[in-house]
Amino acid sequence: MIIIMKHGAAQGEVANVVARIEQMGCQVHLSEGEERTIIGVIGNGRPIDGEQLARMSGVERAVPVLRPFKLASREFHPSNTVFPLNGVSIGGRQVITMAGPCAIEDRDQLLDTARAVKDAGAHVLRGGAFKPRTSPYSFQGMGHEGLKLLAEARQETGLPVITEVMAPEQVPLVTTYADILQIGARSMQNYALLHAVGESQRPVMLKRGMMSTVEELLMSAEYILSHGNDRVILCERGIRTFEPYTRNTLDLSAVPLLKQLSHLPVVVDPSHGTGKWELVAPMAMAAVAAGADGLIIEVHRSPETAMSDGAQSLKPSRFSDLMSSLALVAQAVGRTI
Amino acid sequence: MIIIMKHGAAQGEVANVVARIEQMGCQVHLSEGEERTIIGVIGNGRPIDGEQLARMSGVERAVPVLRPFKLASREFHPSNTVFPLNGVSIGGRQVITMAGPCAIEDRDQLLDTARAVKDAGAHVLRGGAFKPRTSPYSFQGMGHEGLKLLAEARQETGLPVITEVMAPEQVPLVTTYADILQIGARSMQNYALLHAVGESQRPVMLKRGMMSTVEELLMSAEYILSHGNDRVILCERGIRTFEPYTRNTLDLSAVPLLKQLSHLPVVVDPSHGTGKWELVAPMAMAAVAAGADGLIIEVHRSPETAMSDGAQSLKPSRFSDLMSSLALVAQAVGRTI
Amino acid sequence: MIIIMKHGAAQGEVANVVARIEQMGCQVHLSEGEERTIIGVIGNGRPIDGEQLARMSGVERAVPVLRPFKLASREFHPSNTVFPLNGVSIGGRQVITMAGPCAIEDRDQLLDTARAVKDAGAHVLRGGAFKPRTSPYSFQGMGHEGLKLLAEARQETGLPVITEVMAPEQVPLVTTYADILQIGARSMQNYALLHAVGESQRPVMLKRGMMSTVEELLMSAEYILSHGNDRVILCERGIRTFEPYTRNTLDLSAVPLLKQLSHLPVVVDPSHGTGKWELVAPMAMAAVAAGADGLIIEVHRSPETAMSDGAQSLKPSRFSDLMSSLALVAQAVGRTI
Amino acid sequence: MIIIMKHGAAQGEVANVVARIEQMGCQVHLSEGEERTIIGVIGNGRPIDGEQLARMSGVERAVPVLRPFKLASREFHPSNTVFPLNGVSIGGRQVITMAGPCAIEDRDQLLDTARAVKDAGAHVLRGGAFKPRTSPYSFQGMGHEGLKLLAEARQETGLPVITEVMAPEQVPLVTTYADILQIGARSMQNYALLHAVGESQRPVMLKRGMMSTVEELLMSAEYILSHGNDRVILCERGIRTFEPYTRNTLDLSAVPLLKQLSHLPVVVDPSHGTGKWELVAPMAMAAVAAGADGLIIEVHRSPETAMSDGAQSLKPSRFSDLMSSLALVAQAVGRTI
Repeated sequence: MIIIMKHGAAQGEVANVVARIEQMGCQVHLSEGEERTIIGVIGNGRPIDGEQLARMSGVERAVPVLRPFKLASREFHPSNTVFPLNGVSIGGRQVITMAGPCAIEDRDQLLDTARAVKDAGAHVLRGGAFKPRTSPYSFQGMGHEGLKLLAEARQETGLPVITEVMAPEQVPLVTTYADILQIGARSMQNYALLHAVGESQRPVMLKRGMMSTVEELLMSAEYILSHGNDRVILCERGIRTFEPYTRNTLDLSAVPLLKQLSHLPVVVDPSHGTGKWELVAPMAMAAVAAGADGLIIEVHRSPETAMSDGAQSLKPSRFSDLMSSLALVAQAVGRTI
Repeated sequence: MIIIMKHGAAQGEVANVVARIEQMGCQVHLSEGEERTIIGVIGNGRPIDGEQLARMSGVERAVPVLRPFKLASREFHPSNTVFPLNGVSIGGRQVITMAGPCAIEDRDQLLDTARAVKDAGAHVLRGGAFKPRTSPYSFQGMGHEGLKLLAEARQETGLPVITEVMAPEQVPLVTTYADILQIGARSMQNYALLHAVGESQRPVMLKRGMMSTVEELLMSAEYILSHGNDRVILCERGIRTFEPYTRNTLDLSAVPLLKQLSHLPVVVDPSHGTGKWELVAPMAMAAVAAGADGLIIEVHRSPETAMSDGAQSLKPSRFSDLMSSLALVAQAVGRTI
Repeated sequence: MIIIMKHGAAQGEVANVVARIEQMGCQVHLSEGEERTIIGVIGNGRPIDGEQLARMSGVERAVPVLRPFKLASREFHPSNTVFPLNGVSIGGRQVITMAGPCAIEDRDQLLDTARAVKDAGAHVLRGGAFKPRTSPYSFQGMGHEGLKLLAEARQETGLPVITEVMAPEQVPLVTTYADILQIGARSMQNYALLHAVGESQRPVMLKRGMMSTVEELLMSAEYILSHGNDRVILCERGIRTFEPYTRNTLDLSAVPLLKQLSHLPVVVDPSHGTGKWELVAPMAMAAVAAGADGLIIEVHRSPETAMSDGAQSLKPSRFSDLMSSLALVAQAVGRTI
Repeated sequence: MIIIMKHGAAQGEVANVVARIEQMGCQVHLSEGEERTIIGVIGNGRPIDGEQLARMSGVERAVPVLRPFKLASREFHPSNTVFPLNGVSIGGRQVITMAGPCAIEDRDQLLDTARAVKDAGAHVLRGGAFKPRTSPYSFQGMGHEGLKLLAEARQETGLPVITEVMAPEQVPLVTTYADILQIGARSMQNYALLHAVGESQRPVMLKRGMMSTVEELLMSAEYILSHGNDRVILCERGIRTFEPYTRNTLDLSAVPLLKQLSHLPVVVDPSHGTGKWELVAPMAMAAVAAGADGLIIEVHRSPETAMSDGAQSLKPSRFSDLMSSLALVAQAVGRTI
């Protein structure tokens, strides 16, 4: 932490800041320029509350030196987190594909789609049973019935399943059905929920909030990690900008950035990230070229009748074509799919 | 709903869309231009799933004609929602001021601040017992102990209290202590929580998410209203933009916009909205001039030692000065404080 | 400038940075923590190229300590810039109102509107002769003919005029007609244009770019000031955000922020800032309450036939009512209008 | 154009709108629902001023049906624009790479870098002689001297050159030296400049403004095209968002979107798009995978002493490695480099 004093800060103000820092058990390095006095805080690992120091009289601002996340950081854990799931490795050389419908709508729709994505080479089946919807009047998902259908689809295809959990009290139920728990973008800072999945025994895929920085995503991962669950997958799914042609702006630069800052696997969701099925294939290919460890893609057997997100869903045949194209890109960057 | 067909859409595609609309029980008005065919959907009150129609073959896009919120809309409920709270009216001619510390830290801090804001003329005491924090390593609030102190402060000062509730399972506990339940910005789309407070018997202040549109705020209000609770207060607290000098960008134009679109009372939070105490007073005055029904302001007896948000907290003496200035602005726009 | 070295930076890397700083003629203060080495650069007024230092081997980042603007800063020039214009003072106790049509369309339209805004109490007439338009197919303004009409309106009403200049080669022509040169939001970083108006003998109103920070606005003012023109007026006119209900998001917190950082007068444009005439009056009142030194408001005798920006223009009668309301708010904050 | 009337609009208001539309020479299709009246405007190619109609009494909003760009649109010009440049084709199957220093600093720096990028396989040399800088105190480029060095580098390496032009009066000078004129992000809506390069005989690379939508980029291209120059290259270079870790957010989804909406070639600038050299290579690969027709990349022989943008510049050896990796990705998507 570095404390920058205001131009013309009084001697006494500097002395007060120094005293406070020493009370915290930290050391002080003082630099007195003609224009400003700068105070370096040497914490040697102690957490320092910069916000408090920033508010002291005569202080202009406090500049943090260390990143605020630790368990999620690559500095703390230099090698990649890799963990097995149903015969494949998440975070390894192979790019993992999760595919399926946005929402589970009925038995036939789910099973048909599950078979189709399995045939196309997907590794994990996705499907929402609890759906966060902006409007209280929209379809809210099939709930427990949907989870049962998911279990049936897993049984039949052998694919592990990922599904969203929206509230802490749903965690026990969803955990009995899901191989990976998904935390949706709107729940990224639902701390009670992060706490609950942090105590579960399931891998968690944490989606970046549409309004959240890369650092905040890592801080939310830190919540899960600090509750004992070290199988966290990060997911970039588009952020909100001023651009109206796409539903969100898919921030692919977050992929190499997250890989640099953290050891956790990074998955990209080009379906929500663009909101338009025509853009899903090019952005999926771009994601793999940028270094993503996986993709999560919405596939629906008849997008035009889907109960949610049809505009961004691929038909099974297009998904199958995409898997072939992805194999070439993966190979070009030294990976498999 | 209006359906805009693609340039060169086939006759059969148009016919399919028309058939689907008629299946929904709606009427169709067809406009065939040389460049595009446009299909008007006359629903006469029926909910129309435009997303589904937009995905049909040959369709370019679907344009909604009606606003997606109903219970929250002024069209549906032309007169202002006004309700009494402890001798004052929320949503009426008087501008309501809620003030107090960001977080409850200890008994003396809370009681001292409570007395100070009461003396300065505040109508409601604010204080956080459950604190949503970006970092798992930051102070998370005093929890139930904090709520008890809040009850003591209410007892002593006679001020009703507002405090945040972060999870559905906390609602029963917080409801026994709070006069107004606060839904924080990060929880604006926590639907399980909106459901829970919608079924409670307490007024709810719903804060706009930091990257949520005005329409999404009203849709979240719609969740609460549709669960039977009609005492909802909307709160503008700043949105996230590219500007780094302020913590958020306080969107004051949301005040007259919300008053136009909705009948619900609108409160402004200039403390979170700016993140800098020097900007709180001018923005509080601007909020009243723009038509806000209330203000929520962080006051701390010694901001430089506050455990959260000290940089944006006013000292009691400054808050008292602000209340005097606000009285003049309120009078200038035909209101009292 | 403070240089933060990477975790584990080598001794030699630190030595190289120190040597480079000393080459620049600056002094060094070294703080070696267990986690990081921090190097303070004491420039004593010398400009330091932090970007260069940030790129050296072993450096994590460089944190500037001083603001990058000088002539525009209040530290450098503590008292407000106030200058006379046609009998009123810009930047003084009186709030200045500039009003008129977005674009000059014909003689009658301009003269009628000019008389109306004069009668309502406006101090300056606005009107665009050169119009920056997103589409090459939209009306681009009357050009020189429009300037002549502006001169006629000034003659008749006695109001000084403000009009936009879009290119360096237009500056001599526009200067012969305008009392204040306006730099539009899209031109805020048109440096050739800033240079040209910096060398003119006219006051300049510089509008904030729709996605420019407060600091960038001040840097663009610095360009004008550094070319010898010290009569610069800053104008907040809304920034671009994700919110679609308003054309822009009017950032009123920029008003007290600019007044704190700079000595230059600050004007607010609630017409472009909101894009909706219904929001103009409440936001104009809020701007005055927040401390604005002036307002610029679009007024059109028949907004529904205006050739540009009709949706955000006030009719003369509404503008006249607004002036009465503004007088009360101005009085409440110790000013006149 | 579709006109949506307000709930409860009067018969006379509808009649007035209809009359105005008919005056414009357009036909009307009326849809009267129980909740709203909708008026379809059939223009058959006539430009319709929706803004004017939107302001008429009783109108809620006007929804455009056609895109506002024509010459730039793929509907108007279905096949890709491809044009030759010095033996290669811009917009064809080959991915074109432009590389070189951000700013031309001296003869050795430019010639060394030019040779290096040529050896690595680049097709075009970039180098800035006129530099738009936020601060008037930063290095503003070598100007005419820089252009002469560029000519020398072209002579020696045989590479065509691209360089920025910042003002209309510079166009004749820059045209005598440059093979491609670059319009920088801050100039995207400098209409006098677009006009000037539209009348020049040189290809133009138009960079997206950091605050500009895809549609606005295409409208600025439309300005150039409508002045007779049909060799326009679009460039995505990152947009401004709330994310602070990267300088801009590179919007790669703009690549397939622009290819879908327009026939013009699309180039990506991962250097400005990320601001960090570590992210340049992964984002360059992602751009090619997403379908970009070219890349523009900053290369500097010693980034740590570069006079601008060193943090985002690659060393020649890294650029050479990147070219090898790009060849594999290009091949994977059926292209060459």
